[in-house]
Amino acid sequence: METLKTIMTRRSIRKFENAPVTEAQIKTLLEAAMNAPSAGDGRPWHFVVTTDRAKLDALADSVDEGNAMFKQAQAAILICLDESLEGFKGFGQQDCSCAAQNLQLAAHNMELGTVWIAIINVPPRTAGCRKVLGVPDNLVPFALFPLGVPGETLEAEYRYDESRIRRV
Amino acid sequence: METLKTIMTRRSIRKFENAPVTEAQIKTLLEAAMNAPSAGDGRPWHFVVTTDRAKLDALADSVDEGNAMFKQAQAAILICLDESLEGFKGFGQQDCSCAAQNLQLAAHNMELGTVWIAIINVPPRTAGCRKVLGVPDNLVPFALFPLGVPGETLEAEYRYDESRIRRV
Repeated sequence: METLKTIMTRRSIRKFENAPVTEAQIKTLLEAAMNAPSAGDGRPWHFVVTTDRAKLDALADSVDEGNAMFKQAQAAILICLDESLEGFKGFGQQDCSCAAQNLQLAAHNMELGTVWIAIINVPPRTAGCRKVLGVPDNLVPFALFPLGVPGETLEAEYRYDESRIRRV
Repeated sequence: METLKTIMTRRSIRKFENAPVTEAQIKTLLEAAMNAPSAGDGRPWHFVVTTDRAKLDALADSVDEGNAMFKQAQAAILICLDESLEGFKGFGQQDCSCAAQNLQLAAHNMELGTVWIAIINVPPRTAGCRKVLGVPDNLVPFALFPLGVPGETLEAEYRYDESRIRRV
């Protein structure tokens, strides 16, 4: 899909079809995420990937209080922050956010759906990710992305707001 | 450009040709940035835009210690965080980072170059942006993007690293 169309039509998808997410698609998502820019080229990210039905179901209960989207998702990717790799101290969340946005755009481009589930700074969700996905202590769970073929069709939303712009 | 190609070939550009950045291009960049997802749909961002030669030159001296890229740039966009608009407290930097990545991809897609200049948490640069661009006190300067027709050609960099992936 053309880049600007992808950016302007991407929506957060929370319902998924019972259809597979392929290994090739998962690799493309990880390639896109890891091609994000990062402060000082630190690339302070790790990715935990699961396609395991039991773990996806457990995420539904542990991370999002029974939200059905993880029961419908066919895969999930957890982006983790490795603070020891930060190129500049304190910029790792910005780096991981860029990786996350690349991942979301790559998903939409492949006609997969996903939604950003905030994990960092949400203690029960952090604990849930650590427990279900076995995240090592040195990594900080940052954001979790359920993945699947979209089970809902959402119109593009045009969010441009001239009142947020100052010309100087 | 196809989305994945844009993601995989984008590089940080620090040299610019003496060629204009158009108003239509600036609007496209702002449309892309404002179509980023945000926590709780808070959209806690503002944008300060300048194409003023004197201000761009002043940014070179104030923000980046005389780095020539602002003297070559034809425009600059400063993304600012408005913490009062955060949908969930403390997630505004993640939201602004998504807007920033959309902006960078949209620039590359239009064959414009830019580079993420970190401003937040860098006090001298924050002060420089406030002074040169007249940022109101209620906004936090977050990241600054010089813009221009690329004056350097950088090969795509493939950053995929299997050692950063855990399968569970």
